[in-house]
Amino acid sequence: MNKKLDLIYEGKAKKIFASEDPHEIIVEFKDDATAFNAQKKAQFKGKGELNCKISTNIFRYLIKHDIPTHFLRSVDHISIAAQKVEIIPIEVVLRNIAYGSLCKQTNIIPGTKFDSPLIDFYLKNDQLNDPLLTLERIKLLKIINNEELEVIKQLTLQINFILKNLFYEIKLDLVDFKLEFGRNFNGELVLADEFSPDNCRLWDLNGNDDKIKSLDKDRFRNDLGDLIEAYSEINTRIENFIKFPKKIC
Amino acid sequence: MNKKLDLIYEGKAKKIFASEDPHEIIVEFKDDATAFNAQKKAQFKGKGELNCKISTNIFRYLIKHDIPTHFLRSVDHISIAAQKVEIIPIEVVLRNIAYGSLCKQTNIIPGTKFDSPLIDFYLKNDQLNDPLLTLERIKLLKIINNEELEVIKQLTLQINFILKNLFYEIKLDLVDFKLEFGRNFNGELVLADEFSPDNCRLWDLNGNDDKIKSLDKDRFRNDLGDLIEAYSEINTRIENFIKFPKKIC
Repeated sequence: MNKKLDLIYEGKAKKIFASEDPHEIIVEFKDDATAFNAQKKAQFKGKGELNCKISTNIFRYLIKHDIPTHFLRSVDHISIAAQKVEIIPIEVVLRNIAYGSLCKQTNIIPGTKFDSPLIDFYLKNDQLNDPLLTLERIKLLKIINNEELEVIKQLTLQINFILKNLFYEIKLDLVDFKLEFGRNFNGELVLADEFSPDNCRLWDLNGNDDKIKSLDKDRFRNDLGDLIEAYSEINTRIENFIKFPKKIC
Repeated sequence: MNKKLDLIYEGKAKKIFASEDPHEIIVEFKDDATAFNAQKKAQFKGKGELNCKISTNIFRYLIKHDIPTHFLRSVDHISIAAQKVEIIPIEVVLRNIAYGSLCKQTNIIPGTKFDSPLIDFYLKNDQLNDPLLTLERIKLLKIINNEELEVIKQLTLQINFILKNLFYEIKLDLVDFKLEFGRNFNGELVLADEFSPDNCRLWDLNGNDDKIKSLDKDRFRNDLGDLIEAYSEINTRIENFIKFPKKIC
């Protein structure tokens, strides 16, 4: 059940293997890190393992809160078993605070807190540099119908609500995150891909309020300090929270 | 009334002067041509005059078809008088056929005819390279409210209907165009800026069907031949149509 068969796909941060069950895949988290559409590259020993642990815990937490995900079980220290899904070629980005590419594309000041989250859809296409999509363009490209897009939007808002609260409990500010969704063999839309500091921004709420402390891939993007130290800190806080949970939500 | 006073603003292809009437401006069309966000530049003797003539005729034609515009009257061979408006910092692009930047930003094949027109909104900001806007981003940036955006969208669709028919009568295919809108001193939304081959794509329907003949700024963008010849051809066809109109619409 947990045996890695053929390599189906290798992405920038993960490998996908076939498994003995035709409806399942094995996701292996790599130590590779890329930024700015793979123009900047590096390897961080232990990143794969940390992202595997963080994603596993986040997926389990979301499932407990009734969010459908592709996660099935842990396989080894760098791999999980997941439902085989047909990935929707849209990257869904939710932002609670303006930062990064949004501020380069608009005149919004970095750090601006939004009254309600901003959701953006991008075409999942590295060659085209993942361009921003409008609703009219999504319709035109026939990627997904309006009903499914609305389901994805609502799931994204729910995930934000659940995780913003979780991270707040462990003194982290969930600035933004990127999600991918897929259709499983039942045709159901489920959260796919991963949820790790590779794909979200988390700012440390401990310490000096005036100093923003990135505990995510911005450390690598903007040379802000040790990436593994930051990812370990997030993993430790999540694991401690899971062991000794407080009542939240 | 038609005297040019202080230069208020100089853009890539036009100069705006104050006039003796505080509610009016004088728009002067320049011979300068720029493309790819002003990375490519040139001058074409006579372009200003041709764009002034074409815009004047198009504005008059639209006004006759009940479209509110900023156009007031002709001033000289390169200038018009217009209402002073507060420009909405959004560039509205309507496409009947996929071409240009859209095809670079998506995987839509150039030349694809749309069943219904695609309308895109871009932030009017040269420094940011006029980024694409989603409806959520327009709301977030507080540029314009939903009702006004809907008015602009409906006016753009009407303008497309009117001009697509006009150009079809003179054997031109209206591929796409860019509009700008402004609020006049009554608070009314009116079509502003210009309508010329600088801001639209027009393909010649005469001749060989398999050969697309650009009679617009693509001649300059993509070095497809003499710009002035193309603009003159468009101007001549419009003027002949106005002198000897057929019943259309």
